[in-house]
Amino acid sequence: MSMMTGKDYIDSLRALSPEIYFLGKRIKSVVDEPMFQPHIHAAAMTYELAHDPEHQEIMAATSHVTGEKINRFTHVHQSIDDLVKKVRMMRLMGQKTATCFQRCVGLDGLCAVYATTYDIDQKYGTTYHERFKNYLREVQKHDWMPSGAMTDSRGDRSLRPSKQVHPDVYLHIKERLEDGIIVTGAKTHITGAINSHEIITMPTRTMAEEDKDYALSFAIPADTKGVTYVFSRQTNDTRRLDGTLDAGNPKYGIVGGEAMIIFNDVFVPWERVFMAGEYDFTTELVETFAGYHRSNYGGCKVGLADVVIGGSAWIAETHGIGRVSHIVDKLTEMIAMAETCWSCTLACSYEGYKTPSGAYHINPLLANVVKLNITRMVYEWMRIAQDIAGGKIITLPSEKDLAHPEVGKMVEECFYGKDGIAPMDIIRMLRLIENMSVGAGLPEAMHGAGSPAAQKIMISRRSGIDKKMELAKRIAGLSPDTDFERIIGKSEKAHWDQVRRNMQEKKVQIY
Amino acid sequence: MSMMTGKDYIDSLRALSPEIYFLGKRIKSVVDEPMFQPHIHAAAMTYELAHDPEHQEIMAATSHVTGEKINRFTHVHQSIDDLVKKVRMMRLMGQKTATCFQRCVGLDGLCAVYATTYDIDQKYGTTYHERFKNYLREVQKHDWMPSGAMTDSRGDRSLRPSKQVHPDVYLHIKERLEDGIIVTGAKTHITGAINSHEIITMPTRTMAEEDKDYALSFAIPADTKGVTYVFSRQTNDTRRLDGTLDAGNPKYGIVGGEAMIIFNDVFVPWERVFMAGEYDFTTELVETFAGYHRSNYGGCKVGLADVVIGGSAWIAETHGIGRVSHIVDKLTEMIAMAETCWSCTLACSYEGYKTPSGAYHINPLLANVVKLNITRMVYEWMRIAQDIAGGKIITLPSEKDLAHPEVGKMVEECFYGKDGIAPMDIIRMLRLIENMSVGAGLPEAMHGAGSPAAQKIMISRRSGIDKKMELAKRIAGLSPDTDFERIIGKSEKAHWDQVRRNMQEKKVQIY
Amino acid sequence: MSMMTGKDYIDSLRALSPEIYFLGKRIKSVVDEPMFQPHIHAAAMTYELAHDPEHQEIMAATSHVTGEKINRFTHVHQSIDDLVKKVRMMRLMGQKTATCFQRCVGLDGLCAVYATTYDIDQKYGTTYHERFKNYLREVQKHDWMPSGAMTDSRGDRSLRPSKQVHPDVYLHIKERLEDGIIVTGAKTHITGAINSHEIITMPTRTMAEEDKDYALSFAIPADTKGVTYVFSRQTNDTRRLDGTLDAGNPKYGIVGGEAMIIFNDVFVPWERVFMAGEYDFTTELVETFAGYHRSNYGGCKVGLADVVIGGSAWIAETHGIGRVSHIVDKLTEMIAMAETCWSCTLACSYEGYKTPSGAYHINPLLANVVKLNITRMVYEWMRIAQDIAGGKIITLPSEKDLAHPEVGKMVEECFYGKDGIAPMDIIRMLRLIENMSVGAGLPEAMHGAGSPAAQKIMISRRSGIDKKMELAKRIAGLSPDTDFERIIGKSEKAHWDQVRRNMQEKKVQIY
Amino acid sequence: MSMMTGKDYIDSLRALSPEIYFLGKRIKSVVDEPMFQPHIHAAAMTYELAHDPEHQEIMAATSHVTGEKINRFTHVHQSIDDLVKKVRMMRLMGQKTATCFQRCVGLDGLCAVYATTYDIDQKYGTTYHERFKNYLREVQKHDWMPSGAMTDSRGDRSLRPSKQVHPDVYLHIKERLEDGIIVTGAKTHITGAINSHEIITMPTRTMAEEDKDYALSFAIPADTKGVTYVFSRQTNDTRRLDGTLDAGNPKYGIVGGEAMIIFNDVFVPWERVFMAGEYDFTTELVETFAGYHRSNYGGCKVGLADVVIGGSAWIAETHGIGRVSHIVDKLTEMIAMAETCWSCTLACSYEGYKTPSGAYHINPLLANVVKLNITRMVYEWMRIAQDIAGGKIITLPSEKDLAHPEVGKMVEECFYGKDGIAPMDIIRMLRLIENMSVGAGLPEAMHGAGSPAAQKIMISRRSGIDKKMELAKRIAGLSPDTDFERIIGKSEKAHWDQVRRNMQEKKVQIY
Repeated sequence: MSMMTGKDYIDSLRALSPEIYFLGKRIKSVVDEPMFQPHIHAAAMTYELAHDPEHQEIMAATSHVTGEKINRFTHVHQSIDDLVKKVRMMRLMGQKTATCFQRCVGLDGLCAVYATTYDIDQKYGTTYHERFKNYLREVQKHDWMPSGAMTDSRGDRSLRPSKQVHPDVYLHIKERLEDGIIVTGAKTHITGAINSHEIITMPTRTMAEEDKDYALSFAIPADTKGVTYVFSRQTNDTRRLDGTLDAGNPKYGIVGGEAMIIFNDVFVPWERVFMAGEYDFTTELVETFAGYHRSNYGGCKVGLADVVIGGSAWIAETHGIGRVSHIVDKLTEMIAMAETCWSCTLACSYEGYKTPSGAYHINPLLANVVKLNITRMVYEWMRIAQDIAGGKIITLPSEKDLAHPEVGKMVEECFYGKDGIAPMDIIRMLRLIENMSVGAGLPEAMHGAGSPAAQKIMISRRSGIDKKMELAKRIAGLSPDTDFERIIGKSEKAHWDQVRRNMQEKKVQIY
Repeated sequence: MSMMTGKDYIDSLRALSPEIYFLGKRIKSVVDEPMFQPHIHAAAMTYELAHDPEHQEIMAATSHVTGEKINRFTHVHQSIDDLVKKVRMMRLMGQKTATCFQRCVGLDGLCAVYATTYDIDQKYGTTYHERFKNYLREVQKHDWMPSGAMTDSRGDRSLRPSKQVHPDVYLHIKERLEDGIIVTGAKTHITGAINSHEIITMPTRTMAEEDKDYALSFAIPADTKGVTYVFSRQTNDTRRLDGTLDAGNPKYGIVGGEAMIIFNDVFVPWERVFMAGEYDFTTELVETFAGYHRSNYGGCKVGLADVVIGGSAWIAETHGIGRVSHIVDKLTEMIAMAETCWSCTLACSYEGYKTPSGAYHINPLLANVVKLNITRMVYEWMRIAQDIAGGKIITLPSEKDLAHPEVGKMVEECFYGKDGIAPMDIIRMLRLIENMSVGAGLPEAMHGAGSPAAQKIMISRRSGIDKKMELAKRIAGLSPDTDFERIIGKSEKAHWDQVRRNMQEKKVQIY
Repeated sequence: MSMMTGKDYIDSLRALSPEIYFLGKRIKSVVDEPMFQPHIHAAAMTYELAHDPEHQEIMAATSHVTGEKINRFTHVHQSIDDLVKKVRMMRLMGQKTATCFQRCVGLDGLCAVYATTYDIDQKYGTTYHERFKNYLREVQKHDWMPSGAMTDSRGDRSLRPSKQVHPDVYLHIKERLEDGIIVTGAKTHITGAINSHEIITMPTRTMAEEDKDYALSFAIPADTKGVTYVFSRQTNDTRRLDGTLDAGNPKYGIVGGEAMIIFNDVFVPWERVFMAGEYDFTTELVETFAGYHRSNYGGCKVGLADVVIGGSAWIAETHGIGRVSHIVDKLTEMIAMAETCWSCTLACSYEGYKTPSGAYHINPLLANVVKLNITRMVYEWMRIAQDIAGGKIITLPSEKDLAHPEVGKMVEECFYGKDGIAPMDIIRMLRLIENMSVGAGLPEAMHGAGSPAAQKIMISRRSGIDKKMELAKRIAGLSPDTDFERIIGKSEKAHWDQVRRNMQEKKVQIY
Repeated sequence: MSMMTGKDYIDSLRALSPEIYFLGKRIKSVVDEPMFQPHIHAAAMTYELAHDPEHQEIMAATSHVTGEKINRFTHVHQSIDDLVKKVRMMRLMGQKTATCFQRCVGLDGLCAVYATTYDIDQKYGTTYHERFKNYLREVQKHDWMPSGAMTDSRGDRSLRPSKQVHPDVYLHIKERLEDGIIVTGAKTHITGAINSHEIITMPTRTMAEEDKDYALSFAIPADTKGVTYVFSRQTNDTRRLDGTLDAGNPKYGIVGGEAMIIFNDVFVPWERVFMAGEYDFTTELVETFAGYHRSNYGGCKVGLADVVIGGSAWIAETHGIGRVSHIVDKLTEMIAMAETCWSCTLACSYEGYKTPSGAYHINPLLANVVKLNITRMVYEWMRIAQDIAGGKIITLPSEKDLAHPEVGKMVEECFYGKDGIAPMDIIRMLRLIENMSVGAGLPEAMHGAGSPAAQKIMISRRSGIDKKMELAKRIAGLSPDTDFERIIGKSEKAHWDQVRRNMQEKKVQIY
């Protein structure tokens, strides 16, 4: 069986030597750096749970290319059931890590490139899809985690990629060689980048003919020569160095461990290139990826909501206000919002469809609705979590003060709640709520998988407004309503003439 | 085939002679009264579309009791697919009538009594379920529309039913006879009551032992002796008498045509009694009905949203502002909310389950989420519709003024929009938007199928808050995290000790 | 003293003979028509309360042109105190009528034309202001209620007035004569038009040079030859003919009694013309009027909120749920929103300023904020009123059924609440809540004084965004922060260099 | 003149030696610790601007006790004008520091104790007020910044102070001596505590007779023996040690620098005790303080809004999307919310009143409305700031990486926007927006000056719901409407009888 455990995954990262910078230092061992470990643990959970009998049905799948049992994070969805299991997996992972577990980006990249390469080949007779299937087999065989690198830094947004003053604000082909291409540019805030085995790139937007060299997709090992990572600062990142308490979620971190990936004349062999100039397929690739990815947010973020709702409820309970009506009402509002997002992601999975490639895709209209709701409701439920948890979440003393021989005890005393609850447990939970509700998790919910403005454009386009106008015209009497005529057994005109006559002749009983 | 057409249905009502009052008059013929006709047309649409080849798959079903093809509005759901088709039917019906088509209340009553009687019999060895199946066969055979009568008027809400000063504020058993029971009391604002063939009653709340006589469910023909209907005033009801324009939706009306049903010593034979004292099953019956019914609102009201969104878009278009950014944004917000509600109802259907009776039930948590969202989002999208449509919707002149020989033409001139659009078409559409967004439809979205406070109670109860607390405790380190220990390959304690040691010994690289 | 009482006002209308149409009939006597009486009563309240010693201080004022004591509704504000009293008067009037009392439109028209004519004269040496002052003296002397006619029907909104296919969609000068002008066109949904003594017109938007003939303001008696009124249908208007209960607020109506005013070659003498082609002052006139008028909504609508909050609280009380936590919370939310709107209108009055004409104007930024909030919060508080009041508000039986000898008593029984409360009182209050929350009042809150999009444009323009950018640049270190340099006693550069040095030299204590 | 400059203030802190702990260390010099400096700068701004001729009118005042010119932060408001100037000062300070400047808590403490001691003395013949006036003279003379210490940690919130298992969760009198009292307990998250000259304590809630020893108010020097401070961790606090960029607002910090203050058998001489057992005045003291303090939030937070709106606008501008419609709309929404809060605080100041002590107090209902709005709108506008600024705000590289000789240049290139804008300026502004919108500032807006539940209780209590019920009863016809009778010139009954008669006799024209 090719599925790694969590520990296997961590060990597997040791074999790679990506060039990573953080806080001005070159990182020697990703795995041993306490600043990165929580992210790695979160990603490791995607491996670990695939071995848990309780969760295996949703965490593992059977490969349609090899027939092998694989981790679902490397599986191209072959049915509606696959799509639904995928979002159940997302929610479960959110519940288990209370943060971003990073691996869905690569999964969505695999699925999107799979479907799009098939369509490119149909039009152009290219062989991208076969290449990609070979690559997919490798990914599944090694149980790799590839990062999905889409977002370019984009410079002046009123200008197209090829018109930018600084060309490297978009990743592009610098040179086409016989055996491959040379690429240059950068991808920004790529989730899980530093602890992935591979990078899959995709264009960040629709490209026009003039932007041909920017219509680009490929995969390379994470430690390919010329690739440099700069790890992002995160909210309260260095608290991981101040002990095990202040970080809030020292095991799994906060958000996904984003990094910039700078490509400095990187060589990509043709067998790893999946799009190289077919600009007319950039929309499809972007929208397919975005569709998958936006749908996930109704899974993972709802898993996080489960944790923060539970944490808030526990805090209220331990302070003696668990049954107070306004607290119950607030918790209920949180739950209602979380389940709303969950419903949207379930619906967009259940209402998925088969693409020409055989892969299943979610319902794109509803996937954008998922994400648009997330960009608002996550903020709202985290706001309520802060309301319930109280001002303490931002004024907690440090672990070091709690451990201080002179003041530690005195400080701890201030955190007594209901008798029988250890103050330190209350502090731990408050720190978790701080970690989840005050920090990078919120903008991530806003901008991950695209900003709300992007979702609105898709919703507007996909909503079938013309059909809606027709419905209204029919009811309002601007278009013929044949159903109505059948019901009344005559023409509409005849009907209304009769009605008018009846009224004039006072056949109406009421007045 | 037992399925009636729309016209058959209307004709079938002539055979009944219910005692109905409205505006102080006893109504002789429901079918001929222009005040009631729009509601009857809307209900007729549920019959008519079952014969439309385009929609038959979702409008018709195969009876599990007779094997006959029946109208889905009389079908007890036998699968997830049935549940999903039911909500598709709801949305379609909303799109086709732009109002309440009334027949889902009886459907939900049938399904809820079906499942509950099975469970009562299991506990008490009664034969309610068989009785009910016989009744169901009749309903399907005749393609009846039964009204679902649940809400009592409830008097002082701080007192239980049996403690009320005025006992008739709850419907109850007055006397138990050998061949049946005598009931007295009233049910309030019952949708479609005056144009239904039958009445199915259900208790309005959980009853305690002292309220035994209020734990009551039965079915009787709509024109049973002792039953009196008083039809409700609706927003702008008498405009139906002022011509065909002012009513906005003269074909199908506004909301469902609610009526009070007063039971004055009504005799019900035992074979039509489905609960008579089993107070411990009132919760199940109420919640099962409420679950089904609340889930519908994400169907029908979204169908209405489709119409009002289309109408608003058309109005914007005809006034030359269809492409203005704030208009597009507002339409997109409306769509996003409508599809959110739709997603919730799809999800609660897809996530349904089989009850012991064999009938399928929706997911109750999500059904309550559907309805809670409806109580807010309908208001919001109708608010936006009013924003787009403009102040004209509440200041339109009357049809009679438009038809006036002297001023009619002058008035019509004021309604020119984009060249080529007939002012009268604009007026028609504005009247439709008025009908849908300014009036009874909004409180109906609030209180139909139960008020938001009721939904919140159900959401709070069904949310599994204890499991969520456990998730949070695990992440925060208050409970053991075995997954984490497997990932790190040692005990948590050992891990954190190591981390602390590393830090003290400055093995941390970053600082 | 020139102040009329309510009764005087009603009698004064008999002297006029405007040409009014409604429901296809020419109205002979406005005052005697039960469809119009409630509006007239509401307007009469503006007269009546000026004689009430309790309210006289805010209802009356001293004319700056005559020194006489006058009704504040004819007073041009001469101080901040006047502005504040004006909004107090608005709230009081809303509390006393629970609807639109109409007379503020004319007041705002008087004030806006007063200030603008002064400025036109300053630039062009015209004598508009003197003419207008003479007119104002007449208005005050007779205690007239003029309607303020601004909104044109506007046709295709993507075209300027002079480019419309149908020119009469904007009121304009058709001919300039020696002694006056001939105007043609129409004004739509003008509040209080049919029961005003006079009409003051104003342009509906900024005009360009090509639209010169549309840059127009004048005043004429309400029954001037060529002027035709078509009264609008309102929500449930004909209920006024069905008795005294169903209308909900039979005394004062619902919204303001809007009418279209059609001008068919109407002659206006020069002494009553206040703008005739000075297109460069249309923006000022429109914005000044809009500023005053938008600020009012935080007064009158909050007065209505007081009533509907009180009514909702009373209904909850009488049903035994007055102390239930979710009810208290909902009432509190309503109050908080109402007081927010009230605060905005107070602030925009207190922060007013003196115009060159000597008249005081409100703060335009805040006035637009008032109205934008109103377009949302009124909907929200009315939504909550519907939530608290329950489904009954849209399913109440008619007065005639309640009076019916056979069913009346039975129906009334269904409305028992807490013991000791008469069911009929409950019904009355529910009808009032229906009147206020389900109907024309909401779109009126949206579009009266201009639509939200208009308010947003004004807010955006008036917000001083450049100054805000400068603040941010200063804090972010993009601009010099001289305050900071004074605080630290050296240059910023020197400071940060020192900080960096300290850190490098580990002079920092913490780590 | 007794007013210190910013620099004077900083120097004055050197004279104190409070016992402060942070990150496990005893702090030697508050002023020299880079972790604390930003907070100190922010507080210093309150001193500095009082010397700026441009702002002196609102930053300085004339003492009513000494006649001296003093910093307004030590002034007890003597007029409405003082109240309004105070909130203008708040907004200005927010604009100048983009964070909490801390000194308003002490100011509000001074004002609240001033008014309450007067009232206690009136009832009990005590001399608290004279004592307090002496203290106030000292504060003004030295231009001290006292911290206002109100919040206790409160333990089990379902138990009263005197019933707690751990008595020290509320500060209380342990012993009464001849010359003073001994107090013990703690106050939590006290703003500006470590850089204040004095501490003023107040009870955190209403006390009953049994809680007499908790009804306590006094003032002591910040470095009194037995007082220990533990400084709170803040969002991204240690970034201040990583250079000058990552902190976002390195000059003034983020929130107010909260600390726990632990009182360990602290002696307070009687002349500094202002309440010691008068439990019946705890409500007044708490509510007076809360009223002042809640009103401030519509000043300071709006000042912050000005900065973050400006910053967001600048970022949009520099990325070429400054004129895109959805950006303009979002900025406008931010502005509208900010000005709404500002209006509320202006209104509650303008509508203030004189207390028996002579001090002016704000309108308490409106002050609570201010704060309730703040607990929602700050979140919303910061959410929008994050939307506009983009995902970059949480994935920015560290300053050290930007300064790295190998990767720094490459990283900076990714931050190009519109040509001509330095990437580093963009990074600075993004960091500022991160600082303001992602972190402790939000929960501070929620809980500072009390949580929303507290505000709701006050709003509910102060709203005059009975008067509102009366208004509704009058309109609905449940109470006599004398105005109406005057208007119609007869009794209501006579009027409606007439109306009914007219209708019956078909005197109504319309139908």
